[in-house]
Amino acid sequence: MDKHNFDDEAIQKHAMLHGKIETNPKVKVLTEEDLSIYYTPGVGAVSKLLANNPEKAKDYTIKSNTIAVISDGSAVLGLGNVGPEAAMPVMEGKAMLFKSLAGVDAFPICLDTQDTEEIILTIKNIAPVFAGINLEDIASPKCFEIERRLQDELNIPVIHDDQHATAIVVLAGLINALKVVDKPAATSRVVILGVGAAGVGVAILLVEYGFEDIIVVDSKGIISSARTDLNSEKQALAKLVNKRDVQGDLKDALENSDVFIGLSSGGHLPPELIESMNPKSIIFALANPEPEILPSQALEAGAMVVASGRSDFPNQINNVLVFPGLFKGLIQNEIIEVSSKIKVQAAKALASVVENPTPEKIIPSVFDPAVVEAIAKSIT
Amino acid sequence: MDKHNFDDEAIQKHAMLHGKIETNPKVKVLTEEDLSIYYTPGVGAVSKLLANNPEKAKDYTIKSNTIAVISDGSAVLGLGNVGPEAAMPVMEGKAMLFKSLAGVDAFPICLDTQDTEEIILTIKNIAPVFAGINLEDIASPKCFEIERRLQDELNIPVIHDDQHATAIVVLAGLINALKVVDKPAATSRVVILGVGAAGVGVAILLVEYGFEDIIVVDSKGIISSARTDLNSEKQALAKLVNKRDVQGDLKDALENSDVFIGLSSGGHLPPELIESMNPKSIIFALANPEPEILPSQALEAGAMVVASGRSDFPNQINNVLVFPGLFKGLIQNEIIEVSSKIKVQAAKALASVVENPTPEKIIPSVFDPAVVEAIAKSIT
Repeated sequence: MDKHNFDDEAIQKHAMLHGKIETNPKVKVLTEEDLSIYYTPGVGAVSKLLANNPEKAKDYTIKSNTIAVISDGSAVLGLGNVGPEAAMPVMEGKAMLFKSLAGVDAFPICLDTQDTEEIILTIKNIAPVFAGINLEDIASPKCFEIERRLQDELNIPVIHDDQHATAIVVLAGLINALKVVDKPAATSRVVILGVGAAGVGVAILLVEYGFEDIIVVDSKGIISSARTDLNSEKQALAKLVNKRDVQGDLKDALENSDVFIGLSSGGHLPPELIESMNPKSIIFALANPEPEILPSQALEAGAMVVASGRSDFPNQINNVLVFPGLFKGLIQNEIIEVSSKIKVQAAKALASVVENPTPEKIIPSVFDPAVVEAIAKSIT
Repeated sequence: MDKHNFDDEAIQKHAMLHGKIETNPKVKVLTEEDLSIYYTPGVGAVSKLLANNPEKAKDYTIKSNTIAVISDGSAVLGLGNVGPEAAMPVMEGKAMLFKSLAGVDAFPICLDTQDTEEIILTIKNIAPVFAGINLEDIASPKCFEIERRLQDELNIPVIHDDQHATAIVVLAGLINALKVVDKPAATSRVVILGVGAAGVGVAILLVEYGFEDIIVVDSKGIISSARTDLNSEKQALAKLVNKRDVQGDLKDALENSDVFIGLSSGGHLPPELIESMNPKSIIFALANPEPEILPSQALEAGAMVVASGRSDFPNQINNVLVFPGLFKGLIQNEIIEVSSKIKVQAAKALASVVENPTPEKIIPSVFDPAVVEAIAKSIT
């Protein structure tokens, strides 16, 4: 392994900071007069105004520009069900990135419950404060119901980032990777390993974009209508994908395929399976923190374009590329529903930031300021 | 009325700001390496550490120093039940003051429910993020049960500010006012008008401090064991106060008394009742935004020391004097239970900031930096 290990430094820096974000007043309150304007008695006039016009909260309060980053700690990174405290550093990290990359305020909420109904109730109850809800690291399949119910019942955008931001960044990377290998989307054979929130989100968006030959594989094998052990999300997915009705395991799925997308937790892609794929194969090994195959091994095995979720290899497919600009655009344009059309537009916008894709550069840097602008502008 | 009206300016300034607080990263994330330390993959090491030691969240996350300022919008200022959106500007204002006066981070949470059980459940579910809970502007009597249950069930301090911070600042002011008029607490006759959260909190703390002659009056008259219309909080209070068993209304209560404390919503103190009090009377007319009597009228009617909740008169009795230092001290010393002893210590500490009390100066300015320090140091 040639990668740098950041563990010790991360622990040390987190201990120094005691939390990665802070709340700051936007104006100084230094005098009795300031107090009378921003607190009592002046604030009473603003409260009265909002009592009569609650929908104006977005004009007078932090609801204008603040996202809740919410997790129950049930599926944190690749670590699994580690609880709300362990989710905090990740949610704080996202809150930091919302602000530093897109100027969107964000606050982490980690829940001391993993019950679907309690999660929904709690989020609905705190929703008046926020311009949008970013659900994060919530286990599948309950993540689907939680998102769907909140989208139905709240009048602000609710996005499970692991599904949709991941789907957008994967599609963006794939658009450019297919340009590099010069293959069309419709006829490219795509294999997705992993059918958690991300796998489902990616598969659905690829279908919506125009991919016609997708096979999805979970730990028990290829998803097909012949399987009797599928939950309702996987059953629905089975109807959308695997049109050739392939049976078997990852090996069967990958033979003569063009694209591998790894979104597994702890899955592996043996190099010999890459050798069984079509020439000019595309490998996205996105498991975190350990990819399904190391990029160097994938290239050795014959892949032409390789991406991972890691910052220490080229082509980092990370949803950091998406969520800041996505929420910025939704807030700016007061859009509540994140339709398939919006997601495809965002993916195309993100892909277009790389003018001339190459095997080593199919996706822009997180720090390229054009990324947030392109995505935010595409959200219409 | 000689007061300046801040309404228009407050509305205009709030519209300009679009929210009075913002969330900011404590460090800049500018490079791939920063991202690897503060986000993936490095953050995974911190998550793993907290998965095994959730109690260390206070060392590695914003739980170290962040207070939730929570309201259901059911009793906002003197405005009443105006809902969560209308509560937002007030809670944001408190969050601002927490940070600017005491360096404590704070975030407003306004709840879209007024159901006691839902409020308790929601707050418990979001508690992992916070070092303490400041309940605010929640209607009486449910505020009592909500506070009690959360104190029982959470391992962070939970304080209903309207009860306890108000009680502390009133006691502090009263300690100095009694010095000015040279009367002892034990024999001074105190009348409290208003038996909401603040009235109950003040009455209990005064008893605990050593006041022995307290009469409490609500909109139906003097609270006594003869009353058959009392809720359980008022019944409990009836056993603590009114030892002389006085019957009747505010007029009966005030005759030959020494101290009036108005904590009513919309109550009035006619000047002639002040004339019926003992010489060198003390009038705290704390209703907000309209005091029970204007300070100038109270002085004309013969009062010797007059205080109000307003910043445009001398002696502003405002719980802003208490909550920043109180929570700062609780966090610093990792104290969970706010005992009577702590509250009395805090009141004495606050009173002591004014070295030589005079009729016009019984309480320090909110902007005196000695206030937060004195209170925080007293919390042991």
